[in-house]
Amino acid sequence: MLLISYDPVSGWSVPEIKPYGPLALDPMSSCLQYATTIFEGMKAYIGPDGTPRLFRPEQNMARLERSAERVALPPFNSAELLTLIKRLVTLEKRWIPTLPGYSLYIRPTIIGTRAALGVAASDHAMIYVVLSPTGPYFRTGPKPLSLLGVSDTVRAWPGGTGGHKLGLNYSPGFLPQRLAAQQGYDQILWLFGEDKRVTEVGAMNVFVVVKRDDGNWDVITPALDGTILPGVTRASCLALTGAHPERTTLPNLPAALKLHTHERPLTMPELFAWQQEGRLLEAFGVGTAVIVAPIGRIGFEGNDLVLPKHQAGLGPLGSALWERITEIQRGQFEWEGWSVTCE
Amino acid sequence: MLLISYDPVSGWSVPEIKPYGPLALDPMSSCLQYATTIFEGMKAYIGPDGTPRLFRPEQNMARLERSAERVALPPFNSAELLTLIKRLVTLEKRWIPTLPGYSLYIRPTIIGTRAALGVAASDHAMIYVVLSPTGPYFRTGPKPLSLLGVSDTVRAWPGGTGGHKLGLNYSPGFLPQRLAAQQGYDQILWLFGEDKRVTEVGAMNVFVVVKRDDGNWDVITPALDGTILPGVTRASCLALTGAHPERTTLPNLPAALKLHTHERPLTMPELFAWQQEGRLLEAFGVGTAVIVAPIGRIGFEGNDLVLPKHQAGLGPLGSALWERITEIQRGQFEWEGWSVTCE
Repeated sequence: MLLISYDPVSGWSVPEIKPYGPLALDPMSSCLQYATTIFEGMKAYIGPDGTPRLFRPEQNMARLERSAERVALPPFNSAELLTLIKRLVTLEKRWIPTLPGYSLYIRPTIIGTRAALGVAASDHAMIYVVLSPTGPYFRTGPKPLSLLGVSDTVRAWPGGTGGHKLGLNYSPGFLPQRLAAQQGYDQILWLFGEDKRVTEVGAMNVFVVVKRDDGNWDVITPALDGTILPGVTRASCLALTGAHPERTTLPNLPAALKLHTHERPLTMPELFAWQQEGRLLEAFGVGTAVIVAPIGRIGFEGNDLVLPKHQAGLGPLGSALWERITEIQRGQFEWEGWSVTCE
Repeated sequence: MLLISYDPVSGWSVPEIKPYGPLALDPMSSCLQYATTIFEGMKAYIGPDGTPRLFRPEQNMARLERSAERVALPPFNSAELLTLIKRLVTLEKRWIPTLPGYSLYIRPTIIGTRAALGVAASDHAMIYVVLSPTGPYFRTGPKPLSLLGVSDTVRAWPGGTGGHKLGLNYSPGFLPQRLAAQQGYDQILWLFGEDKRVTEVGAMNVFVVVKRDDGNWDVITPALDGTILPGVTRASCLALTGAHPERTTLPNLPAALKLHTHERPLTMPELFAWQQEGRLLEAFGVGTAVIVAPIGRIGFEGNDLVLPKHQAGLGPLGSALWERITEIQRGQFEWEGWSVTCE
């Protein structure tokens, strides 16, 4: 693992790469008392030339910088951190699986290590990066997720922290997730407000595909209003969808098909209406871990909204995005420098 | 410090009391990644007979149990934990300062120690309790706080976690607190919603005192609607205020004065209106660390609401509550078993 520590007198320490092992933390550490912790999720792949590759890592680094600012952790040089991560990944290259669907998961973390109980910003910190080989989210191919729409527990709110990748956005979801599982649902669909706006799925961003009167498709995801995590996979799905068919053709989608992307509010009543009109084509969650995960049904106020079934598990757009993104990640399809080699 | 660990096979370990020192935590620990951490703040005092005393500790233990449930940490026996805390305090009795205003601060903490990155409840945990002698919040007597009313950053939300004592409620306040300090304010007054409801002060509950037409006083604090921490000092202030004058007379308050307690929404426009009518007598924050802290002014939308100045810093009700609560804590005034000896 990679380790760098910060103190207010000497600043960031000389980075160290050392064997994975426990961290020695003062019991009063800010991260343990006041949840001063932020992280990123990234993946490394082996390209056709045998070189490790990262997927749009500068996006993760920029988000980590914004997260640090949000919880008043000391600023750091994200370009230098990326250089160090590349070096770590190159050093541990033998751990990157080459099987399709497998990769080396990278978890950069920054914790506040100020050892004092006064409720104030942490003037001590530690950056660490750990690695773990990881397999496909769905071991036997994409299986549509069942979601429980939840609005009594709220993941994020205006003026809150849902738009940043902070550790503290996650543990409040454990209990609702457990309750949803007891009701037979895989994940939570986080709803917000009187109008039951769809925000996120578990720890993923969400997309729906709606057929227009002219036969083309609307591709809709909630806007980044501060309650939505600005996911790298989300941004990539929007960019690739927006580029079809003018700038690139997505796999197995007709070149004549126009895809209209929208970042806007999306409500449960809208989903039900589109489904009854037969216009709701598919819905999926997106994120670094899963890339694209199909949604099969959504439980909401005692009813289940059932989405169209697709033979591959994923619908046509979900499949196309999954395929294209994995091709880019593995260096099999070149697209706007998204796949970055660790030279 | 006191240490107890939990694993899903053997449950809670045999408690250990050992010298204060760093904890060895896996870098993937749930507490470091997903902010699975909860805590309590308590204080020990030396009573007139030389025995250490705690203040309403069963209230803290009950709240800690509710916190554990909220972030899906394993349940624990809070009566046994209290017995262990009493034993720890008795063992470390020499560290309890006897000077007025001083005490031994007790910080029970529970962290999730599951060492896996999957976003799920932590099935491993650690309870630890650390101690630290502490002095008065105001070294030279109560100094009225200046507050900045903030509503663009929101501390807590209906359906969120503000009603529980979770570590994650605190780090999002570091940045706004820093910005408030740069504008010359001591603390933040957290406002909520269109009607600019007053919720909490920094990490304290808030009370205001308003003169009624009949000359008696309304004592108002926001209701526990899920966005307000159910503070032990808050509950104690409500109980003592409600008992005056029928069941007890608060120090230096006329026995003829009636105090009407209210737990209800409280808005900034109301505060301004009462102040202009000359009815806003005092406002104060309450909490374990400070007990009672006077509020001197509140910055809101470019104006400062200035509260009446009192010679002692605290106004008459704030002073009375501070005096009575500290008397109870030190065993100098017996009240409903609130002060519990560590026998």
